[in-house]
Amino acid sequence: MIRKADMRTPVQEITWAEAGDNRIFLKRDDLLPYSFGGNKVRIGLAFFENMKKRGGDAMIMYGSPRSNLCRVLASMCCESGIPAVMVSSEEDSEEPVHSFNAAITGHLGTVVLPCSKKEIAETVDRAFSLLRKEGRNPYYIYGDRTGTGNEAAAASAYSEAYEEILEDQNRLQVSFDYLYTPYGTGATMGGLISGAVRHASLKQNPYIVGISISSRSPERASDVLTRTVSASLAEQKLAFPDAPDRFFRLESRYNAGGYGLYNDEIEETIRKMLSRNSVPLDPTYTGKAFLGMIRDLRERNVKGKNILYLHTGGLPLFFDYLNFDHESAG
Amino acid sequence: MIRKADMRTPVQEITWAEAGDNRIFLKRDDLLPYSFGGNKVRIGLAFFENMKKRGGDAMIMYGSPRSNLCRVLASMCCESGIPAVMVSSEEDSEEPVHSFNAAITGHLGTVVLPCSKKEIAETVDRAFSLLRKEGRNPYYIYGDRTGTGNEAAAASAYSEAYEEILEDQNRLQVSFDYLYTPYGTGATMGGLISGAVRHASLKQNPYIVGISISSRSPERASDVLTRTVSASLAEQKLAFPDAPDRFFRLESRYNAGGYGLYNDEIEETIRKMLSRNSVPLDPTYTGKAFLGMIRDLRERNVKGKNILYLHTGGLPLFFDYLNFDHESAG
Repeated sequence: MIRKADMRTPVQEITWAEAGDNRIFLKRDDLLPYSFGGNKVRIGLAFFENMKKRGGDAMIMYGSPRSNLCRVLASMCCESGIPAVMVSSEEDSEEPVHSFNAAITGHLGTVVLPCSKKEIAETVDRAFSLLRKEGRNPYYIYGDRTGTGNEAAAASAYSEAYEEILEDQNRLQVSFDYLYTPYGTGATMGGLISGAVRHASLKQNPYIVGISISSRSPERASDVLTRTVSASLAEQKLAFPDAPDRFFRLESRYNAGGYGLYNDEIEETIRKMLSRNSVPLDPTYTGKAFLGMIRDLRERNVKGKNILYLHTGGLPLFFDYLNFDHESAG
Repeated sequence: MIRKADMRTPVQEITWAEAGDNRIFLKRDDLLPYSFGGNKVRIGLAFFENMKKRGGDAMIMYGSPRSNLCRVLASMCCESGIPAVMVSSEEDSEEPVHSFNAAITGHLGTVVLPCSKKEIAETVDRAFSLLRKEGRNPYYIYGDRTGTGNEAAAASAYSEAYEEILEDQNRLQVSFDYLYTPYGTGATMGGLISGAVRHASLKQNPYIVGISISSRSPERASDVLTRTVSASLAEQKLAFPDAPDRFFRLESRYNAGGYGLYNDEIEETIRKMLSRNSVPLDPTYTGKAFLGMIRDLRERNVKGKNILYLHTGGLPLFFDYLNFDHESAG
C-alpha cells in the first residue's frame, strides 16, 4: 500500500490566456501514485491510519456514487483484507449516474448500502450493526452517526501536505500569493488552513481561497470549515485565530447550481485544459473550481500574482465525462 | 510539455501468490506524469524531438483506434500547435471499438484518416499530400510509407530508460534476474535490448523477455526486433551481438489469439491486480502480458528469482474495459 513517503507531487506552470498576467501553477495531486490519484489518496490514508490507531478492523464510509474517497478507501481496505461498507446517498441530479468510481468500488468488494439523503444516519447505524454481528470493531470515517466528530483526522492530511507546498515554494523559488482549492467536504481546505495558521509567522504564506462545488449555503460551509480547522488546530495544541479572514475566504458563487451540475463554460474549460496542457479535469470538482478561480481572479481584478491551484484529481470522473459526451454525441 | 527530466517512475514490489517464491516488482511507467501515462510517453517524446531535429513541422502517426501512442502524440502536437494526422487502421476484431484513446485523440484536434490494414501505405501518402498542400514539412513516425526506416528513434526512448532501471537496482539494492515487457511494435523491447547490449559488461543485467500481445508470427517479430536493435546500436556505434539469445527471448504463446483479443484468465488477472495492489491493467497489453509472464515463469520452473515487470500503462484502455464490463453486465 502507498506510504506517506511516496506522496510528493509535482507543481507545473501552465499557460492560461484568460488569467491575464497572473502566473498559474498546478499542484498535481491528481498524480498521487495510488488508485488513480487525487486528494483523497492523502485523506484516505489519514482515515485508514486513524482506524488502525483506534483499534478498528472494519471501515464504514459515506459518499455519493461518484465519490473518489470511497474508491480510494475501498482500494486500501481490499488490499489489507479489511471489510468495507459504503453508505451511498442519491445525488441532486435526477438522472441515474454511471460512475466509474462506483464500478471500481464494487469490483473491490465493498458492500454498498444505498439510501436517500434523509436516511444517512440510520444507514450508518445499519452498517455498524452488520459489521458488529460479524465480530468486527467498525470505524466510521466521519465520527458519529450524524457525521461529526472526526474532523481532525480528515484535516490532518492537508495540514501535513501544507508543508510540501511550502517546500515547493522554496524549490521553485516562487512565492504563491494565492492557493485555490475546490471546497466540498471541507477536509482539504480545512487542512490547508490549519497548516497556514501553524505557519502564521511566515511571510510567504499563500492566501487560501476555496471554491464551493455544491449548493451548501455559505453559512453552513463556513461552520463546517470552522469546526474542521478548530479540531485540527486543537490536536496540534494551537488556538483558532482571532481574524480567520486573514488566512482564507470561501466563494460559493461558482457552484453552477449544485453538486454534480455543470454548464457550457465548465465543459469548455475541460476541453481547453486538455488541449493546452494535456491535464484532465472533471465537471464535478476540478473543472468547476478551476473556472471559478479564473472568474474570481477577473472579478476581483487580481493582476500579476502567482496563483497555485490544487488539482485534487478524480480521474475516473474525467472518463465518466468523456463517456457522457460520447453518448450525447451519438 | 513534459521533459525528459520529469520522467522517473517508481518500482513497486507486489504480492502475487501464483508467482511462487519469485519476487515480483512493477516498473510503474503507467505513472509517467503526462497524458494518462504509459511507455508511449517516453516513445512519443522521442518521436516528437526527432521531428524537430529533422526540421519537421507536422506529424503523421499510425495506429489502431486503441493506440496509446497516437493519443500521447496528439497531446504533444496539440499543446505545441503542430498539426497532426493519424492513419488509423481497422482492428482484428470485427466489433466496432469504443475507445477512450480515440475519443481523446479526436478532442485534441488530430485529423483521423481511417483505412483498412491493406491501405496503410496509400493512406500515409495521402497524409503527406494533405500536409504538404498546407505548406508543411511532415514527419512520419515510422519512416517511409511502408513503415520502416525510423526504428532507431523509436528505440532510443527505452534504450535511455534502461539506465533508469539500472539505477533502480542500485537504489533498491535488488538485482533483477528477469525483465519482462509486453511486445507490440518492438520499440520498447528493442530499446531495452539496446540498453542491455550497451551494458553487456555488467554482471547485473536482467535477462529480457518479451510477451507478444498480437498474432505477429515469431519469425516476423524476431525480424522486427533485430532491425530495431541493430538500428539503435548503430546509432550508438555499437555492433549487434553475436549471440543475441544471451540478452533476450520472445514468447509468442500467450497472445490469446491476436491483438485486442482476450480470455477469462486475462480478465481474472485484471481483477486480481486491482484487488490486491490497486494497479490497473488492461486486456490488450498489460494484463495479457502480465499473465503471460506468470505462465512463462511456471512453465519454465523459474524459482526464487527477482522479476521486474515493465508496466507499460495505457490507462484509457482500463476504462474501456470497465465500460465494456458495465455494458455486458447491464
